[in-house]
Amino acid sequence: MTTPVVATTDQELDAVLDAAAAASAPFAAMTPRDRARSLRAVADALDAAAGELVPLAHAESRLPAAPRLSGELGRTTFQLRLLSEVIDEGGHLEVTIDSPDPTWPAGGRPDLRRMLVPVGPVVVFAASNFPFAFSVAGGDTAAALAAGCPVVLKAHPGHPRLSARTGEIVAAALAASGAPAGAFAVVHGESAGRAAVLDPRIRAGAFTGSPTGGRALYDLANSRATPIPFYAEMGSVNPVFVTSGAAAVRGADIADGYLGSYTLGAGQFCTKPGLLFVPADAAPDLERQLAAALAERAGAPLLNERIADGYAQVLDTLTAHPAVRVLSAGRDNGDGPAPTLLGCTAADLFTWWHELVVECFGPTSVVVRYADDAELLACARRFTGELTATVHGEGGEPVAATLLAELSDRAGRVLWNGWPTGVSVTYAMQHGGPYPATTAPLHTSVGTTSLRRFLRPVCYQNVPQTLLPEALRDGNPLELPRRVDGTIQV
Amino acid sequence: MTTPVVATTDQELDAVLDAAAAASAPFAAMTPRDRARSLRAVADALDAAAGELVPLAHAESRLPAAPRLSGELGRTTFQLRLLSEVIDEGGHLEVTIDSPDPTWPAGGRPDLRRMLVPVGPVVVFAASNFPFAFSVAGGDTAAALAAGCPVVLKAHPGHPRLSARTGEIVAAALAASGAPAGAFAVVHGESAGRAAVLDPRIRAGAFTGSPTGGRALYDLANSRATPIPFYAEMGSVNPVFVTSGAAAVRGADIADGYLGSYTLGAGQFCTKPGLLFVPADAAPDLERQLAAALAERAGAPLLNERIADGYAQVLDTLTAHPAVRVLSAGRDNGDGPAPTLLGCTAADLFTWWHELVVECFGPTSVVVRYADDAELLACARRFTGELTATVHGEGGEPVAATLLAELSDRAGRVLWNGWPTGVSVTYAMQHGGPYPATTAPLHTSVGTTSLRRFLRPVCYQNVPQTLLPEALRDGNPLELPRRVDGTIQV
Repeated sequence: MTTPVVATTDQELDAVLDAAAAASAPFAAMTPRDRARSLRAVADALDAAAGELVPLAHAESRLPAAPRLSGELGRTTFQLRLLSEVIDEGGHLEVTIDSPDPTWPAGGRPDLRRMLVPVGPVVVFAASNFPFAFSVAGGDTAAALAAGCPVVLKAHPGHPRLSARTGEIVAAALAASGAPAGAFAVVHGESAGRAAVLDPRIRAGAFTGSPTGGRALYDLANSRATPIPFYAEMGSVNPVFVTSGAAAVRGADIADGYLGSYTLGAGQFCTKPGLLFVPADAAPDLERQLAAALAERAGAPLLNERIADGYAQVLDTLTAHPAVRVLSAGRDNGDGPAPTLLGCTAADLFTWWHELVVECFGPTSVVVRYADDAELLACARRFTGELTATVHGEGGEPVAATLLAELSDRAGRVLWNGWPTGVSVTYAMQHGGPYPATTAPLHTSVGTTSLRRFLRPVCYQNVPQTLLPEALRDGNPLELPRRVDGTIQV
Repeated sequence: MTTPVVATTDQELDAVLDAAAAASAPFAAMTPRDRARSLRAVADALDAAAGELVPLAHAESRLPAAPRLSGELGRTTFQLRLLSEVIDEGGHLEVTIDSPDPTWPAGGRPDLRRMLVPVGPVVVFAASNFPFAFSVAGGDTAAALAAGCPVVLKAHPGHPRLSARTGEIVAAALAASGAPAGAFAVVHGESAGRAAVLDPRIRAGAFTGSPTGGRALYDLANSRATPIPFYAEMGSVNPVFVTSGAAAVRGADIADGYLGSYTLGAGQFCTKPGLLFVPADAAPDLERQLAAALAERAGAPLLNERIADGYAQVLDTLTAHPAVRVLSAGRDNGDGPAPTLLGCTAADLFTWWHELVVECFGPTSVVVRYADDAELLACARRFTGELTATVHGEGGEPVAATLLAELSDRAGRVLWNGWPTGVSVTYAMQHGGPYPATTAPLHTSVGTTSLRRFLRPVCYQNVPQTLLPEALRDGNPLELPRRVDGTIQV
C-alpha cells in the first residue's frame, strides 16, 4: 500500500476498455439473479475488508473513521445488497408482451416483446466527499453493475490508494462470483478519464462532483461523433424556506436543525442547506442564537487541498460582497475551518442572484431575511434546478402549499420540516433534479431506480420462443413482473 | 385555406412561449383522467375533420388520400386514445411510497413518496413523411400532452396549411375540454424552431427527420446554458439478414416481401429496409426475380422537392460508386421515380462502409451478397445504431441466434421473418435505438412508453397528507398502481 498510485497510461486504458467491451456481452447475458449474487459477493468482500479500508479512507480523506467512514462503508454495501434485491425481483427489466392481434387498430399487432437491456460499458467518475458511497464501489458503480454494464471507474485523486485497493476487492469478488473478467476496473488520472468519455467502447458516463467538472465532461460526451448519455450530479445550494408561522412556533428548533445540517461533515455534502430564508422579524433572534452556538464550534479538516482552496476562495468572494454580512466568522486554528455564517436580505439576494446563489462547498451557509410572503415566493421561483428544496411551515398556511408546488417544479426532492442532508437509499428516493443540479433531470443517482440510467429498451417482433431471451418467453421462466397485453401482472 | 402560411415572427414566438410557460402549472395540475379526456377530445375532433384534413394532406404531401392518408389519420387518433388509456390507468406516474422506518439500514428511512411530473413546455419538430402520425397531432405531441407538457409544434414546411389547420383543431379541442390556453400552438419557420430550442421557457425537444437536422438541433439543445433533453429520431438503414437456410427454403417469398417493404410509400419510411444481405449462391436468382418484378413498376411522386433532390443526389452517389451494380434502374416518366435496386458484395460494403451504408430516403435499396456466415456476422457487428434490424432465418441455424444477439445490441427493434415497415402502436413497441438512429437510446417515440421522455421524478419527504399531490396520498384516492415499501400493488 505504500506504492504511489500513478496515472493510467494510454496503453493501459486501451487494455481496460478492450476488456470492458469484451465483458459486455457475457455480463449482459448473466441472468439478473446471477448478477444479484455477484453484487452481494462484492458487498460481502467490502464488509470483510472494513478493517483495512476504513483506516485507508481516513488517512486519505481526513474524515473521522467512526462513525462516519465505517457508517459510510455500511451504506455502500447496503446499496449493493438493495440493488441485488431489485434485480432479483426483475421489475427493472420492464418486460412488456403484446400478443399478436390482427384486429388491433392501425394495421394489426404482431407478437411484440420488449425489455430493457444494458447500454454497455460505463465510465464512472468518483467523488471526493464520500470515499465509499459515491466512489469506487458507490451508487453509480452499483447501479451500472446491477444493470449489467461493465464499469470503468475513474478514481478521485483525493483518495487514490483507497480507490486502487477497493477496486481490487470489487474486481476479485466479481470474478470469483462468475462475472466476466473486464466487468470492472479502476483507472487513475484526468487524462484517462477524458479519454474514456471520448472512447467509442464507452456507452454512458456518470459523475458526481463540481459544476465545472460535470459540465465539461457532459460537453465532451455530447461532442462525440456518437454522443452518449452523461449523468452528472453537480451539487446544489439546497434552499430552505422558513414560513413566518414556523419561525414563530419553533424558530429555535429550526436554528438548531439548520446548524446541525449545514455543518455536518464540515459542510461537504451536495445536499448541504446553503441558504436559509427566514422572516425578517424573526431573523435577529435566530441569527443571535446561531452565532452564539457557532462561537463554540471547532474547526475540522476539509477533504483535500483543492477543496480547501476552493472553499476559501468562494467564501472570500461572498464575504467581500457589499450585500453580505458576516454573522459568525469561522476561524482556522490549524484543524481546518470552523463553520461560518453569513447573512443578507432577500432583496439583495434577488439583485445579486448569480453572485450570491453559489454553492460554497464547506461549512458555510447564508441566512436570508425576507420581508413578506411575496418576496419569499419570488425568491423560490427564481431557482431553476436543485437537488433538494425544503419548507419549514405550519400546515394551515397558504404560502406553504404554494411553496411546495413551486419547489417541486425546481427540485428533485422536496422536504417538509426536515433537513436535506442524509439521502436515504430506498425505492422512492430521488437524488437528482433539473439543471444545474444535474445534466439529466429524468434520472436519479441514489435509490433503486438509479439503474434506469444504464438500461435501454429492445423490442423483439415475432421472434420464436427458443430464440427469445429467457425474460421474454411464454410461461415466464424467470418469474418476472410483466405487462401483458396492457395489464400489469405481478 | 388559401392564405399562404408565413413564418412565425420573433414577437409571435415570444407570445407562444409565454403562453406555454403560463399553461405549464395548470396543465400539470390537471388529473391524469381529466387530461385523458382532453386527449380523446382531440382525437374526436380530428376524426370529425377527416373530410377536410385528408384532402389538404393529399394536396400538400402528394401521398394517396386513401387508404394511406385516411389510414394514417386513424393511426394518429388511435395513438391519442391509447395514450389516454395509459394515463387513465396511471402507471406512467410510477408512484412509489416508502413508509418511515427507523430501522432501515444506513440511517433510517423517512416518509418518502416519489412520482413522475411533467418536465414543462416541449418543442416538437414535425416530420414530412407522415403528415398526420409524425406531425402536428402525431406521436411526439400525443406523448408530451399525455405527460402533461404544453407543446410548441414546429410545423414541417412540406405541409404548412395542413399543419396550421390541424393545429387550430387540436388547440380548440384542448381548450373546449378544459386544458389551459397555451397548452398547444403551432409555429412555422426554421428560425422560430431554432429559437424555441434555445429558449429557457422550453424544457425538452423532440424531432423526427434527417440526421443532419436532428444532430444540429441536438447540439443546439446541449449548447444552452441550461441544456435540455432533445429526442431526435433520425432514421436508419434497417438492415435485413437472410440466412442461407432461409434463402434456400423460401427465397422467392423473401424477395416479394422485401420489394413490398422497401417500395412502400415510395420508400419514404424511416424503417425502410435499405440493405438486404443474401448468400452469394442464392443471390443471382433472387436478384433476377426482383429485377423482373421491378421492370413493371411505375413511379410515384416523392413528398416534396427537397426530398426528391436529396434522394436523387444520394442515389447518384451510390450508383456512381465502383463497388455498386445497378440491378434495376427506376426511371421517372413524370410521375416521380420508379423503384431502383442496387447490388454489391459484402466485402466491398465492408471496405467502403461509410460511403455505402447511408440512408437513401426514397424507393431504393441495396442487395448485398455475402460469401459465408463469418462475413455476414462481420457485417452485422459493424452496425452501431439502427431503428430496426431483421433476420430471415430457420430456427435450427446457429447463425440465426448469434445474429439476433448481435443485432439486439445495435437496434431498438429486432424482427424475425418479417419486415420493418409498419410500426405498430402498442405497449411493447420500441421505435428508437442507439445513435445515429436517435440521440436518446433510452427512449422511444412510438408506443405507450413514449411519454417517459417528458416526465421527471420528484420525491416528497415527510410532506403531510393534505399538502401532498393526490397521487401520493394514503388511501390511493386516484386508484393508481403503486410500489409501496418495495412491493408492486396493482
